[in-house]
Amino acid sequence: MAAHNPSKKDVETGTRFLPRFDDNGLIPAFVSDADTGEALMVAYMNKAALLLSLETGEAHFWSRSRQEIWHKGGTSGNVMKITDIHIDCDQDALWVAARPQGKGAACHTGQRSCFYRKLVLNDDGVVLEDNGSKPMFDPADIYGE
Amino acid sequence: MAAHNPSKKDVETGTRFLPRFDDNGLIPAFVSDADTGEALMVAYMNKAALLLSLETGEAHFWSRSRQEIWHKGGTSGNVMKITDIHIDCDQDALWVAARPQGKGAACHTGQRSCFYRKLVLNDDGVVLEDNGSKPMFDPADIYGE
Repeated sequence: MAAHNPSKKDVETGTRFLPRFDDNGLIPAFVSDADTGEALMVAYMNKAALLLSLETGEAHFWSRSRQEIWHKGGTSGNVMKITDIHIDCDQDALWVAARPQGKGAACHTGQRSCFYRKLVLNDDGVVLEDNGSKPMFDPADIYGE
Repeated sequence: MAAHNPSKKDVETGTRFLPRFDDNGLIPAFVSDADTGEALMVAYMNKAALLLSLETGEAHFWSRSRQEIWHKGGTSGNVMKITDIHIDCDQDALWVAARPQGKGAACHTGQRSCFYRKLVLNDDGVVLEDNGSKPMFDPADIYGE
């Protein structure tokens, strides 16, 4: 029973939770809308944030800038109600399906999704094309200037 | 014109492509099905892989294990035709919407999605629950044992 040395098969096709956090103890979590599949945001969880997310049903992350647990929506009210969390084959990435509450904006810019700009390759290189969606709130109202 | 010192605003709400690769020159790319929104996989792109993806319309990544450009599906035939690539507000994550070709399996285990196991919190901690989907191919047929 190689409990401390799980095989590649254990990790990739087993039912044991064997998360592979990075050197900072983090795992990327991709959040998409549970109803539409729209990509909303990417953030990082440490073990505590992941357990809090599972226990409370609301997304918690590790804030790399503030170096603390971050209850998503704790300030803005735009909490993310989790439908389910999946882990990928090599257990180093998470997919969180969620329903944004409050104004429904996942992004601190006020946009519904953090992914509101598309990459376009033209003769001058890569540029970003805004999808034209309007912010759902004014960040200054929530976070101050 | 602070070309070398883009502001937070430039990065988060502008139209300039100012990707923030990590210390290894990589950016995480989350791939979902362009039609259903199902999460398929997470992989990493370096600048060359990203440009190849934009130029060819097929997903290319940087293989961290092999340390080389990886044309997804080049071996298995399960190429990913890209619909579009979006970047998030702080330009450190990509969302790739794509249509898997071939047998339509994104995962090297033969599963349609790498995210085929759900996290379940029970009295003993976190376990994984398989979604019951059958592999779409036998990895041994494609990659050998």
